[in-house]
Amino acid sequence: MLIDVHSHVAPLNMPGDPAPGAGLAWPCMLCGAAHTATLMVGSKPFRELDNRSWNVARRCEDMDRDGVAIQVLSPMPELLSYWFAAEHTEYLADHINASIAEMIAEAPGRFRGLGMVPLQEPERAVRYLLKMRERFGLSGVEIGSNICGVLPGDAQFAGFFAAAEALDLAIFIHALHPLSTRGIEISPEFAPLVGFPVDTAMAGASLILGGVIERHPKLRIGLSHGGGAMATLIGRLNQGWNTLPSFKARLRTSPSDQARTLFYDSNVYDQQLLRHLYHDMAPGQIFLGTDYPYAIMQTDPQTFLNGANFDKAELTQLSNGAALRFLGPQT
Amino acid sequence: MLIDVHSHVAPLNMPGDPAPGAGLAWPCMLCGAAHTATLMVGSKPFRELDNRSWNVARRCEDMDRDGVAIQVLSPMPELLSYWFAAEHTEYLADHINASIAEMIAEAPGRFRGLGMVPLQEPERAVRYLLKMRERFGLSGVEIGSNICGVLPGDAQFAGFFAAAEALDLAIFIHALHPLSTRGIEISPEFAPLVGFPVDTAMAGASLILGGVIERHPKLRIGLSHGGGAMATLIGRLNQGWNTLPSFKARLRTSPSDQARTLFYDSNVYDQQLLRHLYHDMAPGQIFLGTDYPYAIMQTDPQTFLNGANFDKAELTQLSNGAALRFLGPQT
Repeated sequence: MLIDVHSHVAPLNMPGDPAPGAGLAWPCMLCGAAHTATLMVGSKPFRELDNRSWNVARRCEDMDRDGVAIQVLSPMPELLSYWFAAEHTEYLADHINASIAEMIAEAPGRFRGLGMVPLQEPERAVRYLLKMRERFGLSGVEIGSNICGVLPGDAQFAGFFAAAEALDLAIFIHALHPLSTRGIEISPEFAPLVGFPVDTAMAGASLILGGVIERHPKLRIGLSHGGGAMATLIGRLNQGWNTLPSFKARLRTSPSDQARTLFYDSNVYDQQLLRHLYHDMAPGQIFLGTDYPYAIMQTDPQTFLNGANFDKAELTQLSNGAALRFLGPQT
Repeated sequence: MLIDVHSHVAPLNMPGDPAPGAGLAWPCMLCGAAHTATLMVGSKPFRELDNRSWNVARRCEDMDRDGVAIQVLSPMPELLSYWFAAEHTEYLADHINASIAEMIAEAPGRFRGLGMVPLQEPERAVRYLLKMRERFGLSGVEIGSNICGVLPGDAQFAGFFAAAEALDLAIFIHALHPLSTRGIEISPEFAPLVGFPVDTAMAGASLILGGVIERHPKLRIGLSHGGGAMATLIGRLNQGWNTLPSFKARLRTSPSDQARTLFYDSNVYDQQLLRHLYHDMAPGQIFLGTDYPYAIMQTDPQTFLNGANFDKAELTQLSNGAALRFLGPQT
């Protein structure tokens, strides 16, 4: 049974601009040919989409084809919208989260959901978390790798992670508007291909160095894209921890031990790296993630996992065991 | 026979400030207790050093203890000094490169050298490259992972790489003033522990995406810190290359095939990752690098390599084979 923890949605019907004329780059859908639409942000086309982004029947067809029992639905990261006034993001969140809840209700047993919150105003996000399970029935929250330029390990989000732990909500961290590649103009692929995995790892490292992981032992955090660059940072982080007395004095637990408690998706397009992640970085903590339905997604995930030379118990963890532990019980 | 390609020097006698009173943060040494000094940049202490940074006899003792036959000497990265007027950097380069040449001459057969160039003015750097072997007898150049905020794959450095290839000079890329972690204030360790490996990989990726590797098949490029995050970017770069027609149209060779032609040092403090780099990212292209003499260096490198479960032929490549191919013949 495959559970795909990394799949995105974008509702075809978006809520209206809450401040028309104010120049928000508000997301909305421009309809295209049958079953297609363009997500606009303000007046700019952001991405061409098709009904895989919103149509439950279409998704179920693809899931059946790929042997995926359950998809975890999370917002297209661009919809996280931390750059609006927080009340506008909350208005959008209400709509997006309700859309995810509706998709889940439409095909019982096939979907679970991770919602969005107005994290640019952490206290508002904490209040919003209370609705996540009760009102929307979602299992957790997708957050960006940075929130308007601030990494999640920053002290301003301490209350948010405390609340997520207390409410037993999973946190899935996805690359968004990479900080690492700001102002770099090597080629148009640089930010999406390099900045995404790098920023995901910077977010993860910020949670370790910022003490979040250590403060919240029951918090369940998953990093997209296999943690991005995380696997290559652990050795140096550990060496620094062992070498710098000030660093060791601040963190009781080694960075590698902390990294082993996080979850990571399998979305690395590299079976040897996947083996390294599973065997060396975080044994048992890797779950399937495909980035469905976008162009760069991992197609035929069953074949990808089967071809990576894992034994049966490991394949079970990758296919659904780690996902079920990350998501927690369905309520 | 171990060759340590990643070791740094800082001369005890630094050249005087070429523009006194102009407020340059010029590097100079403030003497401390016996055999120690503080490298100052302008009026600020940058790093406490001891005679391992400049004393050949002391280095040879340490090399004998560690079984290192040859160290490759490169400037402490902070000395690369791209932020000065190019003529001032060139003046410093003349001094630093001559110091490296003197250290090499002092212990025949024990050292090779990588110099520095005023790369912020690429045409000046190209002219300077002509001196590197003839005047200083050095095997190549150490450059920063960015040059005043610009990654090495940027078009402005095209002539520099063409000249390095033509002159058969090796290029060693070392993290410097990380771009990725600018403005991030999670903890004081974030830039050195996360930014360094991330920026090294961004530099490497910029050379692939910028077409430098493809244009210069004979250019020998080595990345410090095992390429930093490079190993975690290859799968996604390849997936993007296979998915984005515009990207594939621009590069003939897949990113993974290009990455296999670069060299990487072993300075990852993680034997499992080292195995992944050697076996999967770039077979045969990993050489020993320790970051001697700094606090974070890999101590006892022979034990580190021996404990990573390589076979004899692989150990030979790691110990000296890849280094000799990277450095080219001694002249």
